[in-house]
Amino acid sequence: MFEKIKHAGAVLRGYAHRTPIMTSRTLDEMVGARVFLKCESFQRVGAFKFRGAFNAISNLPEKEKRQGVLTYSSGNHAQAIALASKLLGVAATIVMPNNAPAIKRAATEGYGARVIEYDPDKSVREEVAESLLKKHNFTLIPPYDHADVIAGQGTAAFELFEDEKTLDLLLTPCGGGGLLSGSAVAAKNLDSNCRVIGIEPELADDATKSFHTKVLHTVKNPPTIADGTRTPSLGKLTFPLVLEYVDDMKTVSEEAIKEAVRFLFYRMKLVVEPSGALGVAALLSGAVPSHGRIGVIISGGNIDGETLTSILTRE
Amino acid sequence: MFEKIKHAGAVLRGYAHRTPIMTSRTLDEMVGARVFLKCESFQRVGAFKFRGAFNAISNLPEKEKRQGVLTYSSGNHAQAIALASKLLGVAATIVMPNNAPAIKRAATEGYGARVIEYDPDKSVREEVAESLLKKHNFTLIPPYDHADVIAGQGTAAFELFEDEKTLDLLLTPCGGGGLLSGSAVAAKNLDSNCRVIGIEPELADDATKSFHTKVLHTVKNPPTIADGTRTPSLGKLTFPLVLEYVDDMKTVSEEAIKEAVRFLFYRMKLVVEPSGALGVAALLSGAVPSHGRIGVIISGGNIDGETLTSILTRE
Repeated sequence: MFEKIKHAGAVLRGYAHRTPIMTSRTLDEMVGARVFLKCESFQRVGAFKFRGAFNAISNLPEKEKRQGVLTYSSGNHAQAIALASKLLGVAATIVMPNNAPAIKRAATEGYGARVIEYDPDKSVREEVAESLLKKHNFTLIPPYDHADVIAGQGTAAFELFEDEKTLDLLLTPCGGGGLLSGSAVAAKNLDSNCRVIGIEPELADDATKSFHTKVLHTVKNPPTIADGTRTPSLGKLTFPLVLEYVDDMKTVSEEAIKEAVRFLFYRMKLVVEPSGALGVAALLSGAVPSHGRIGVIISGGNIDGETLTSILTRE
Repeated sequence: MFEKIKHAGAVLRGYAHRTPIMTSRTLDEMVGARVFLKCESFQRVGAFKFRGAFNAISNLPEKEKRQGVLTYSSGNHAQAIALASKLLGVAATIVMPNNAPAIKRAATEGYGARVIEYDPDKSVREEVAESLLKKHNFTLIPPYDHADVIAGQGTAAFELFEDEKTLDLLLTPCGGGGLLSGSAVAAKNLDSNCRVIGIEPELADDATKSFHTKVLHTVKNPPTIADGTRTPSLGKLTFPLVLEYVDDMKTVSEEAIKEAVRFLFYRMKLVVEPSGALGVAALLSGAVPSHGRIGVIISGGNIDGETLTSILTRE
């Protein structure tokens, strides 16, 4: 996998942004460590998802590129597939529930992707996708359980180590585990002394349970504000990688997530979505040990005005 | 003044952040130019004001440093003076109206400054300040009409030219004219072909009128959302500098300012206060010619949740 990450770095050059690493004296003083935030909120489509999507589509054989790709998502992965496909001249079809926010559908279509809606009360997205795949010979690019997607996501941590050399700890949000496993493989190969901890919301702690019991746990529509982590479980590829390369998993409360979003907004002037603030939430709430040099992957910045308002105006 | 700006650059090294320059393909496509945003929202205290305040206090004679400094402000300049004073071991006194937001008073006191309140219905801030200056031998550091303050503000544009070499146009917000005149002096000395345009809200167009008539105009408490530009007029020092070094002044509507804040939030994930978005507002609304390479000073990011909410949830 580490070789795949290095290859992905070459594939993404000139297409993905090399995102900035932001620091804050205030944050450092609050947590008693030097903290380096790798801000994927400034990545194209506003999230790390562009890395995996672009890498996976780039690596397809020409024939599969000509036939087009398909995915099911109403979130950042859908927009990432749409933009990556556009840049690579590949047709993209996105299966979305008919209750997905209009703004997300419009953004996806804005990149030129075809959106196919389904009624989540009557159909299962995997079945809708399956029938489309058979009919049109599309290639499925799933949101995390795919080697080239994982490799692409690992390039963010790779860049962080290129810039900062050594870290004592790396914190990464965990949903389906694509970002976490890619980051952990990069970290352990570039600085074997760096500990890697995945962070989940308490309300969506399936990966934490899976990690500690070594048995795959699932969760269904967890009511966390961190919508990027509402995935049901780790994947067939990501679970073993997490078990092998990740040192620990920790959870944070909803209030800690909101506090982190507020801190990033008011003190660092960064727009960060709740899932993207998990690492900072873990630091500020004391969920992880804090000393030395700490890298944090800020996974994305796609937060709508209503959600941000509800977080900034705390009750 | 250009020599003062170069000196200020040396004084600020290691104290001020070298703020990042952010770019956006979307913005470039929308305006048909390459746009470079110099993001002083990531400066210490969240605004360019730290540069001028730190430079001015640093350059004081030792005796004046020992006696302490004073300013009147409830905005970014107050916090800038407070933090700069703390870093330089100088006592700071800030005169604030007793109706200033509690959060701003707390932030200023948090940096160790002494806050003295006055009742704006009964007293004039200059008179309150004058009596304190006489009694305590404080040195006044005004928010813009001071050579070392202007020189400090000019270092942001100086860094922008260091990084981007040549620009066809530089856009800078204009309140009292400290940032604009410092930026214009830097620009004209580093790239004589670069045009410099100052941007004001339509509702606070005193400097635009002063520029075009060459007679100083004033405005009283203009009801613009861009609170950093509510200053009554250009200053004794800044007015002649603006006349000599600035090529033009343009205004933008309140709606254009809000649209720019929304664009910066949603598309670039940047937290920018309304005054800081004036340059982008001018570009997006077509108030300025747009081609080639354009630098924009994003002056600050200190926006409260209520104001941002009112902008994001447009009626």
